Amino acid sequence: MIASPTAWSLHPQLEHDTAAVGDLPLSRLLLSNDANYPWLLLVPRRLAASDIIDLDEKDQVQLMIEIAFASRALKDLTACHKLNVAAIGNMVPQLHVHIVARRPDDPAWPKPVWGAVPARPYGAAERERYIAALRGKIELAIPTLTSPAGEGRQDGTARYCG
Amino acid sequence: MIASPTAWSLHPQLEHDTAAVGDLPLSRLLLSNDANYPWLLLVPRRLAASDIIDLDEKDQVQLMIEIAFASRALKDLTACHKLNVAAIGNMVPQLHVHIVARRPDDPAWPKPVWGAVPARPYGAAERERYIAALRGKIELAIPTLTSPAGEGRQDGTARYCG
Repeated sequence: MIASPTAWSLHPQLEHDTAAVGDLPLSRLLLSNDANYPWLLLVPRRLAASDIIDLDEKDQVQLMIEIAFASRALKDLTACHKLNVAAIGNMVPQLHVHIVARRPDDPAWPKPVWGAVPARPYGAAERERYIAALRGKIELAIPTLTSPAGEGRQDGTARYCG
Repeated sequence: MIASPTAWSLHPQLEHDTAAVGDLPLSRLLLSNDANYPWLLLVPRRLAASDIIDLDEKDQVQLMIEIAFASRALKDLTACHKLNVAAIGNMVPQLHVHIVARRPDDPAWPKPVWGAVPARPYGAAERERYIAALRGKIELAIPTLTSPAGEGRQDGTARYCG
């Protein structure tokens, strides 16, 4: 089936710069192809969302749940000093949240990572090791918000898109 | 009463760089003293929180509610093109979330604002006008998450700290 113009798809620039890890209940989880820093992105699979406030309130809360999940996974894997979490999107309008593991010995510290130093692509083995480790984390159920009326999403398991 | 060392207080650097707008249920809302961009900060009043995942889950959700509230207030006041939302904190360890209204004609566009151009302090009248407008927005009740068991915070009104 040919995708209709109303179907969500990942922005080509994000597709180019990342590798897919998997789909959380709301967002696609991506690994940035920049080995300077362990760097994840969450992209809510919602049409025409550019700012966080373009999501409805339930999706905003689910995005926070997924930010916390991805942050903890990244911190567990890297023992980083600090997490940088940001929705900027001045150049790529599709809503995406950066989650970057920072260390005092990384090439941009203490500055933000955007534009600091050129991206350094992963070697294939290193990238696959990261993705496998992240997928191991995803296999744990992702909690979702359940409303008092029981209308919240219950599909707490994640699917791989890679 | 002298504050005990276990009492929350605003980090001196944030105190220096901002003016207080008011207290939302979780966070202190601040206006950055940089007239290059309308720029708010949310600082959760929680001890020893540096990353978002240092907050408990209820506070994480409340932070998202307050990010959405402050984002909408800023967008209403500025008719900005894009919102930049970020928790970085590599230099000031107290958890704080930047919410910046961006326009294609601002001095850093499309780059992120951090370190892009020197801060340009507000004139007193312009700063007070912004703060008054933001306080007008805060006087509307801030929604808080109510748990199914009814144990959520109900104090949806905000207090001024300024």
